[in-house]
Amino acid sequence: MSELLEKLIFSRVKPRFRRVSSGIGLDEADDGATIPLSFRGHLVVSVDSYTVNPPFFPGGNIGSLAATGSINDVVVMGARPIAVLDSIVVEEGFSMRDLEVIVDSMISILEDEGVALIGGDFKVMPRGQVDKIVITTTAIGVAENPILDRPRPGDKILVSDYVGEHGAVVLLMQLGLTNVEEISKGLLKSDVKPLTKLMLPLVEKYRDCITAARDPTRGGLAGVLYEWAVKTGTLVVIDESQVPVREPVKRYSESLGVDPLYLASEGVAVLALRSECSEEVLEYVRKLGFENARIIGEVRESEMFRGYIAAETPVGGLRVVEPPRGELVPRIC
Amino acid sequence: MSELLEKLIFSRVKPRFRRVSSGIGLDEADDGATIPLSFRGHLVVSVDSYTVNPPFFPGGNIGSLAATGSINDVVVMGARPIAVLDSIVVEEGFSMRDLEVIVDSMISILEDEGVALIGGDFKVMPRGQVDKIVITTTAIGVAENPILDRPRPGDKILVSDYVGEHGAVVLLMQLGLTNVEEISKGLLKSDVKPLTKLMLPLVEKYRDCITAARDPTRGGLAGVLYEWAVKTGTLVVIDESQVPVREPVKRYSESLGVDPLYLASEGVAVLALRSECSEEVLEYVRKLGFENARIIGEVRESEMFRGYIAAETPVGGLRVVEPPRGELVPRIC
Repeated sequence: MSELLEKLIFSRVKPRFRRVSSGIGLDEADDGATIPLSFRGHLVVSVDSYTVNPPFFPGGNIGSLAATGSINDVVVMGARPIAVLDSIVVEEGFSMRDLEVIVDSMISILEDEGVALIGGDFKVMPRGQVDKIVITTTAIGVAENPILDRPRPGDKILVSDYVGEHGAVVLLMQLGLTNVEEISKGLLKSDVKPLTKLMLPLVEKYRDCITAARDPTRGGLAGVLYEWAVKTGTLVVIDESQVPVREPVKRYSESLGVDPLYLASEGVAVLALRSECSEEVLEYVRKLGFENARIIGEVRESEMFRGYIAAETPVGGLRVVEPPRGELVPRIC
Repeated sequence: MSELLEKLIFSRVKPRFRRVSSGIGLDEADDGATIPLSFRGHLVVSVDSYTVNPPFFPGGNIGSLAATGSINDVVVMGARPIAVLDSIVVEEGFSMRDLEVIVDSMISILEDEGVALIGGDFKVMPRGQVDKIVITTTAIGVAENPILDRPRPGDKILVSDYVGEHGAVVLLMQLGLTNVEEISKGLLKSDVKPLTKLMLPLVEKYRDCITAARDPTRGGLAGVLYEWAVKTGTLVVIDESQVPVREPVKRYSESLGVDPLYLASEGVAVLALRSECSEEVLEYVRKLGFENARIIGEVRESEMFRGYIAAETPVGGLRVVEPPRGELVPRIC
């Protein structure tokens, strides 16, 4: 087991990415890791288990997804990610070659983001269903002033990029539609990517303007907006024509009878912004390279529709958008 | 899904155990949790995935094991545990009743220990092998001066309690020997229990005497001692007659051809102590209620046997104890 771990994990992580400053990290192979507390503020911690099926998909794999997903959970809370711990559980018989590619993808994202891998666990479960792998990642970040996810009436809703691409790709893969033209041409792939390049400068410059921030993974954009509406007893009104959806996602969603609003993204941020600075933030977000960012709606007070999302209709009325039910696509992340 | 989580998790955790002081915790159902940093020192973090099979065993279940195991990983590093995040992955068809019992066991241990459950994840994997559950727990603790696991030549090795009970029980269960007399009479069961009542006062009073501390889970006592010997290039010499092993564990191990030295414990600490204070610490450990604690050996310099464990033979010689190979009992934790 220790040789396996040496080959699979330790040898792949550069020394400077094995600990946080002078703390105990991967080299010690101890039961835990330490982080010297030299910063002030709040620790932000997130844990997620990734079970995506298939583990390899256009645009990434379960390793890049696990690293990205946990980093994103921390950055959308306004924190700078500093360390990750992973726990990998595979069924006996899982391809060692695949496992190496998955671990490499995970580590490569962590290194690109300057995030240390300070510890973890690895277990093999007998049984022999060879496609079974679960990766659980814990991300740790620090924030002076974490984003508390409290959108208020009047706030504008900003979406940083095209939505639903990860969900659409995994859905197509799960349906066996692996050879669709847009996938083979690279026009349609998972959007899995860390949001640090968006969120860190944004929080640095416009923290006071942001009242809530999330990444719309399971449940998609509708899922995030519903949670906000329910949590704050408000009505979220969106202009569907403004929601950025790439052409192939739109087309395949229509033909499969799903709404891109409910499809998971893995590299998109949804922000609630104070109205008076929302246009300035939108401009800044675009300047940061997210040219497809849009203001797609706003938060309103409503006696009748507390806890709902509604879409504006062409004739000026409102149509209630259904909350996501269950998981539209299982094992999406 | 949100109703399931409400029923299964949220409703079971008392409000004061849902966050750390003013941080973001379970109530927010956010992507992550926060911990206000009002302490000085080091953060200690540990992640482990639990896959024990069967998930219910005499003395506990995968829920009590997951809570205990992560707490113990943090306390043996000299830290006070303050928060846990959990991630539960079950296969579709897993009994809801069993899941509730498992979650209750986990939460009950956290509450007993005053540890908040501040966040987590829950995923269902389709497939329908009903005994499949994986719980990954992340424990977070704080320590002024973490134990760095650096045993030195001359140090004495203390074991806090009978070893091998968890491993023996799970092994018997896996072999289908579920009706052995000692199990039905409650004489043999898993020792799964948090080590806070041992480690917190011990660190408070004798931190300077402790050069290393671990809990001997996978790989058992031999596993921990081997890691220490290899890591420090020393020889660990043990007196096997001093290793506390309960009678039924001894007997079943013998008849099954395994050595209790390699069997997992889930409520035992192994300490390396500076020789001059080791007897005083032993007395204090016993006073804390661990009457079966013993000094079982010592760390020595050795040119010939760097990185080995050896047992003293009755005629005064040394016999090398083999390192644990692979996992003696798979899915023990």
